[in-house]
Amino acid sequence: MADLLVVGTGLIGTSVGLALRGQSDVVLSDLSAADLAVAVERGAGRAWDGEEAFAHCLVAASPSAVVSVVRRLADRSGTFSHVASVQRAVQDDLAGSGVDLARVCGSHPMAGKEQSGPTAASASLFAGRPWVLCPSGQTSPGALAAVRDLALACGAEPVELTAEQHDAAVARVSHLPQVAASAVAAVLAAQGEELALAGPGLQDTTRIAASDPALWVEVLRQNAAAVAPLVRELSRELAIAADALDRADPAAVEDLLRRGNAGRRLVPRKRGEHDRDFVVVPVAVPDSPGQLAGVLASAAQAGINVEDVRVEHLPGRPTGVIELLVHLSAQAQARTALAAAGWDVVGG
Amino acid sequence: MADLLVVGTGLIGTSVGLALRGQSDVVLSDLSAADLAVAVERGAGRAWDGEEAFAHCLVAASPSAVVSVVRRLADRSGTFSHVASVQRAVQDDLAGSGVDLARVCGSHPMAGKEQSGPTAASASLFAGRPWVLCPSGQTSPGALAAVRDLALACGAEPVELTAEQHDAAVARVSHLPQVAASAVAAVLAAQGEELALAGPGLQDTTRIAASDPALWVEVLRQNAAAVAPLVRELSRELAIAADALDRADPAAVEDLLRRGNAGRRLVPRKRGEHDRDFVVVPVAVPDSPGQLAGVLASAAQAGINVEDVRVEHLPGRPTGVIELLVHLSAQAQARTALAAAGWDVVGG
Repeated sequence: MADLLVVGTGLIGTSVGLALRGQSDVVLSDLSAADLAVAVERGAGRAWDGEEAFAHCLVAASPSAVVSVVRRLADRSGTFSHVASVQRAVQDDLAGSGVDLARVCGSHPMAGKEQSGPTAASASLFAGRPWVLCPSGQTSPGALAAVRDLALACGAEPVELTAEQHDAAVARVSHLPQVAASAVAAVLAAQGEELALAGPGLQDTTRIAASDPALWVEVLRQNAAAVAPLVRELSRELAIAADALDRADPAAVEDLLRRGNAGRRLVPRKRGEHDRDFVVVPVAVPDSPGQLAGVLASAAQAGINVEDVRVEHLPGRPTGVIELLVHLSAQAQARTALAAAGWDVVGG
Repeated sequence: MADLLVVGTGLIGTSVGLALRGQSDVVLSDLSAADLAVAVERGAGRAWDGEEAFAHCLVAASPSAVVSVVRRLADRSGTFSHVASVQRAVQDDLAGSGVDLARVCGSHPMAGKEQSGPTAASASLFAGRPWVLCPSGQTSPGALAAVRDLALACGAEPVELTAEQHDAAVARVSHLPQVAASAVAAVLAAQGEELALAGPGLQDTTRIAASDPALWVEVLRQNAAAVAPLVRELSRELAIAADALDRADPAAVEDLLRRGNAGRRLVPRKRGEHDRDFVVVPVAVPDSPGQLAGVLASAAQAGINVEDVRVEHLPGRPTGVIELLVHLSAQAQARTALAAAGWDVVGG
């Protein structure tokens, strides 16, 4: 008997298999033989033979498949979970389906990327990320424990919420920003003008406007009750702002900007963003192999801990700038050591 | 006689001085003796003695100061430019002031950062960025050439636009995204709920909501005529989306998402974003000095060109993941060479 069957070897399912490698005996299943083959080849688990039993089943396929999978595999699995990005709708489907609700616990790992499919999967996808557990009133302690253990084994941080709490939270942190980014980009598209002057502000604000419409229309449909009031409130804020601009009312505009500051402070810091104790040391280098390694080797030799590094390629130029992030206390030493090693430290 | 007087040694003025070091004789002036001292100390130029003449004067101070500076220094400078983020208002101020308009050319370097002041200045701030030149109908060829030469000497790409074209363009690429990000964050602040589940989508969409309200209220006031219609159109799109969600009209929601895709395709790629020919090779490392240098040295020894690199620190864990971006054609070789050198290549 296997420890786990993963149904659906896309980004999430394959990443779960990779994260559990060496910890659990995982079998895999997918309607696509090609995706299944990639997941097996990458080491996410064994192909399920259609007969073997397993302790737990994770449905990492479309939310609409959850009920039929649970019904079909009820004899082979102990407990079930799924990874639907809207929980209430799946819980309702299950409640009306006649399956044994005690054995099922919904869940939602808050991890993803712009790419999809088993080739984009990674053992570290869930590391340090929240994994929401959404037991229903009928979920047994054993079913909840099974998905909690799974989340922990993947390196995630389990967070228990009701389906309603989860759906309201993702409406705020994920679905509202998606609609807003799409709407900003749609307004710009309608202008029919070049955006060549765009800088990082527009680029960040519209990044998720590139998301897959087919996937998102389904997510938004399922969570419409939570998302629509937020979208309407955003529309109202913007109508008030437009009126304030028209009648030259700076106090109203400033009020919006200040409330925006307050909201931004509620957003947890992104991995890769750093506090004010870190400073950038920029080094100009020719754009050729080995420069990055050379700069970092010089820093390491001087005992400088480089917290982060970014490479800025200048369009159409044969040079780039390597930005090293170091602690404020190490800034002077880093600049001196890198310059002494012959590097072109910028703005010194 | 100096080549250039920079009035205002904030982020932009000091960065101009640093970029011109070794190319031009730059004198500096600022109402703040402390800021001036930092700029001189950093090597941006000499402190202006209040008497010396100069070929060109760049007003890198508040837009409201432009007229008085031009009037006061008319006897000492050949030509003038400024760096106002809204051009029409300054052009109107100048036109009504009685100064010699032939000697003045507005301009706007499209560069900045979240920090301000001379300590944040950098010689590479303008490298590869657009620098908009906005001559009025009265601007002489000599005044236009002076600011064009200045932009080129700073490593920027000069782009000539009318004040109206400039103001309409920044309304789209900068002012609309600012209002949108502030409004999204303001809606979230009003919810009064934790945003602990937030991922990169919300973080990117609201990043510029942290901007300085005092500065932005002035920019938005000056460009209200161009910004208000865009904000109103955004409000309208969102009202339609909220209605479509309420009445479960997936076609209308999908239409918005698809137009968002189209708009996003118009946004130029950010420095540090890469096309689909590049893939990530993740390497798990202990979070201690020298790991980054070691991984990159191994890549360099194997002849792998690392296009970009990112360090992911996992909160509360003693390890991190270094993500190397390499060309698709080098992926297999990079994974093999790094594993052979003893590194923990993830998901292999």
